[in-house]
Amino acid sequence: MKLLIIGGVAGGASAAARARRLSEAAQIIVFERGPDVSFANCGLPYYVGGEIAQRDKLLVTTPERLKNRFKLDVRVRTSVEAIDRVAKKVRVRDGVSGREYEETYDKLILAPGAAPLRPPIPGIDLPGIFTLRNLYDVDRIKDRVDRGVKQAVVVGAGFIGLELVENFMRRGIATTVVELQDQVLPPFDKEMTTPIAEHLAAKGVTLLLAQSAASFEQAAHGIKVCLKSEQRLPAQLVILGVGVRPENKLATDAGLEVGPRGGIRVNEHLQTSDQDIYAVGDAIEVKDFVTGEPTQVPLAGPANRQGRLAADHIFGRAAAYRGTQGTAIVRVFDLTAAMTGASEKTLVRTKREYRKVYVHPAHHAGYYPGAEAMTLKVLFDPHSGKLLGAQAVGGAGVDKRIDVLSVAIQAGMTVFDLEEMELAYSPQYGSAKDPINMVGFVASGLLRGEHPQRDVETVLAAPAGQPPFVVDVRTSQEFAAGHFPMAVNIPVDELRARLDEMPQDREIAVYCQVGQRGYLATRILLQAGFAAANVSGGYKTYRLFHPKPNGA
Amino acid sequence: MKLLIIGGVAGGASAAARARRLSEAAQIIVFERGPDVSFANCGLPYYVGGEIAQRDKLLVTTPERLKNRFKLDVRVRTSVEAIDRVAKKVRVRDGVSGREYEETYDKLILAPGAAPLRPPIPGIDLPGIFTLRNLYDVDRIKDRVDRGVKQAVVVGAGFIGLELVENFMRRGIATTVVELQDQVLPPFDKEMTTPIAEHLAAKGVTLLLAQSAASFEQAAHGIKVCLKSEQRLPAQLVILGVGVRPENKLATDAGLEVGPRGGIRVNEHLQTSDQDIYAVGDAIEVKDFVTGEPTQVPLAGPANRQGRLAADHIFGRAAAYRGTQGTAIVRVFDLTAAMTGASEKTLVRTKREYRKVYVHPAHHAGYYPGAEAMTLKVLFDPHSGKLLGAQAVGGAGVDKRIDVLSVAIQAGMTVFDLEEMELAYSPQYGSAKDPINMVGFVASGLLRGEHPQRDVETVLAAPAGQPPFVVDVRTSQEFAAGHFPMAVNIPVDELRARLDEMPQDREIAVYCQVGQRGYLATRILLQAGFAAANVSGGYKTYRLFHPKPNGA
Repeated sequence: MKLLIIGGVAGGASAAARARRLSEAAQIIVFERGPDVSFANCGLPYYVGGEIAQRDKLLVTTPERLKNRFKLDVRVRTSVEAIDRVAKKVRVRDGVSGREYEETYDKLILAPGAAPLRPPIPGIDLPGIFTLRNLYDVDRIKDRVDRGVKQAVVVGAGFIGLELVENFMRRGIATTVVELQDQVLPPFDKEMTTPIAEHLAAKGVTLLLAQSAASFEQAAHGIKVCLKSEQRLPAQLVILGVGVRPENKLATDAGLEVGPRGGIRVNEHLQTSDQDIYAVGDAIEVKDFVTGEPTQVPLAGPANRQGRLAADHIFGRAAAYRGTQGTAIVRVFDLTAAMTGASEKTLVRTKREYRKVYVHPAHHAGYYPGAEAMTLKVLFDPHSGKLLGAQAVGGAGVDKRIDVLSVAIQAGMTVFDLEEMELAYSPQYGSAKDPINMVGFVASGLLRGEHPQRDVETVLAAPAGQPPFVVDVRTSQEFAAGHFPMAVNIPVDELRARLDEMPQDREIAVYCQVGQRGYLATRILLQAGFAAANVSGGYKTYRLFHPKPNGA
Repeated sequence: MKLLIIGGVAGGASAAARARRLSEAAQIIVFERGPDVSFANCGLPYYVGGEIAQRDKLLVTTPERLKNRFKLDVRVRTSVEAIDRVAKKVRVRDGVSGREYEETYDKLILAPGAAPLRPPIPGIDLPGIFTLRNLYDVDRIKDRVDRGVKQAVVVGAGFIGLELVENFMRRGIATTVVELQDQVLPPFDKEMTTPIAEHLAAKGVTLLLAQSAASFEQAAHGIKVCLKSEQRLPAQLVILGVGVRPENKLATDAGLEVGPRGGIRVNEHLQTSDQDIYAVGDAIEVKDFVTGEPTQVPLAGPANRQGRLAADHIFGRAAAYRGTQGTAIVRVFDLTAAMTGASEKTLVRTKREYRKVYVHPAHHAGYYPGAEAMTLKVLFDPHSGKLLGAQAVGGAGVDKRIDVLSVAIQAGMTVFDLEEMELAYSPQYGSAKDPINMVGFVASGLLRGEHPQRDVETVLAAPAGQPPFVVDVRTSQEFAAGHFPMAVNIPVDELRARLDEMPQDREIAVYCQVGQRGYLATRILLQAGFAAANVSGGYKTYRLFHPKPNGA
């Protein structure tokens, strides 16, 4: 068996190591265009900021080590120029000597990754405008920062963009973020990003949403970023973090199928349309685990798994990739945002029926010091209760709840299962009723009909002439600090005595701060014969949709 | 519907609140012997130590609030003396006035909890010897500590015992732990408690294992704790944390069935042998979710869930309790120990077939600062790979991995599913190959036969005449710092060139530090035709079974 692997980072390196474990006899050659293999992609922003102080920490392994330990023939600074599928050989170019040569293969794995987009904006090639993909990029960015940058502009408020923002601020650089969409972190539902946007503002970051760069101009001390809004932003450093495109040229030149967004098409065994050629990682189109649709999800975890599975299949194992859930997480200063499975916008786009609930629990028992707040949104099938997706934003413990929900989605579990989960509780780690249980109670009550719920948007967008009667069941102090428009205030503890104030002919929408008192109020009203429903997540959810203008 | 609930803490309070939500019309009376309802049981040790500074933080709710919000008739300092099942009434005693009266019921929920054991040791009733169950107890313990304690003895190294130890040390008290078993935290497998025992020693705690108190004597300045070993321990404060027994007197007096260890027997709906009487919480016998055997597991989470389910069933819902997994967690100074499902000793006791693996990963990417070590042990069915139990000990992230495994066990997942899990990765939270994936790779490789493994105990206990050839594949420096007896050192990178040193006629057991290099070495040897196996978890697992005498 002669196996060639094109690309030596996440998916390619995993495939190579796995292949060697499966076969001592195989000839395995890894071609890597850059000088490094298997570097810590996700750590690059923290090297710029200084949290990762030593550059060699970013080198997960070296070509020498792969050779000594795994008997791999690793050729760095070496690119593959073309694939001859009929003759089963590739044309290789040594980037140092310029020498070209051929290598035959029995099996070939493509792991070329994805390249950061550089949109054709005037001035985009000016010095000082960077994308971030590898150590070469990070060296140049860090060098520029080390030489002194006062102002930076980050175009694109995705994961890498915001990680760089945090690290620039850490280096004392006044940083502005320009994002085309009207929210940060586009894979998330917009309302879930409100706390992140407010937190960025509180940390001094300038956030320009629903704006984009029209051109870049050379200025006396750097670059002028010219927005479509005609605003001009001076900067000595500009980062483009506006997405990636699969590196599919080798594949398309060889006539392999790619999807509409450029991802190399593979089957469940990671085989391309040529069964002797596999493809893994950011370059491929994968099946969305929840919707079943083809999608592209550039994430390190799935890339590693795909590399492993491709090697498994090549060496005769019946390995199958289950699809990608899109579990992702990002730290933004003191907050964490994480998601798994489908977002609400994906469900809307794919016309999938769903319901959703919000809870706003503390990450551990409130009686123990240090409890941090989180908001957790869960999407589920309105008939079976099957989990479809989850998003969370907050402080400590966000990662744990998303991981728990990721497993539950993979297991095909329902919101009813969340009620029963037995999670580790002592006051430093959780609550006797964990946030996961809470969200299970709320969603299950909705589906069982015992806890009717309305979404904030539905209540506020009720058609004219049919507005619900909105009751705020919090205390008068809470009410005074901010409330839904048109709400009347009847604290829950007074509700039983004031039922005569309720209308008989309209739906009553009740809410409290997070949903718990509203739930009890809903139960009281339902049993008294009223058509009542609770607003999911209460005033805290309202605030996600209607942030205070000052970002407070 | 007239519902009486006996006990107003975790299970009783949950049942009462749930019952009210389900029925505004029901008459609900809660009898609580003590002065408080629904207090933060699991927070009590931290009030002694001062981390929880205000006593009222421990009061989750009050009788007044339950009355105002939930229209509950809560009668504190009131005990139920007897149940008349035929007449469906109870005899009640007002603890303040001494008045006795009767209340009839349609349904009755018993939530009396479990009482700390006070073994019949001479001198056990001396002043200064306490158990910890409620606010009354914690007030007395804290008062004694506040008045000045130099030395304390904690009898029993279970969860509550070790939590008190930490808090006594925090208060500057020299603390000795006396434990009957030869390990701390008896629900865990012994080797998994080695890091905890070493950590306690490092923090200055005196640990006396496999020892017990024979008597307590009054001394000039406190108490003398006399051990069976004839050792004498002076103390001004003694805590008994040697277990609990279900409060079953009311139940047994009324002729309700109890199990061999005293737990009130219930069916899946939490009904006792009298279908109008339910029982929940620490007083009941539950089904072990993994083994299916009856057991008693005093935990707050399950108690709350049972209370809720009992109310559900009373009000006509087809609720069923799935059993208890025994997910538990404890912080001991800077370490965390957590478990879920069956322990190895439970599997041995119940004669269940199993295999096990150990991994020793960092809690997040090693290239990012602050990665903390953990040891994770997973038990699974040797045929199907179905997960049976898991234990973890370490720093940050232990709680997350045990929660993930708890969900996987509840979902009936296998070790093969762990390979595929898509968990949230960025360098602050995990790794591209999470510890959960790692344990999945190791266990799945074992079951697929591509990664044969031996347990440390098996290798060391091999019958005379058939010892395996033991190869340490770490570096010579690592070997010099400590190794298996009789191991020869051949670093993995030299192994391919030194195959002629391997015996043809014996099994070869290889090991490294955590198992990863050992895995590659095993693959190399297997493919060269040798009968090789890797020692699961490597030298780090060896150290769990063979701690260094100095606790280093």
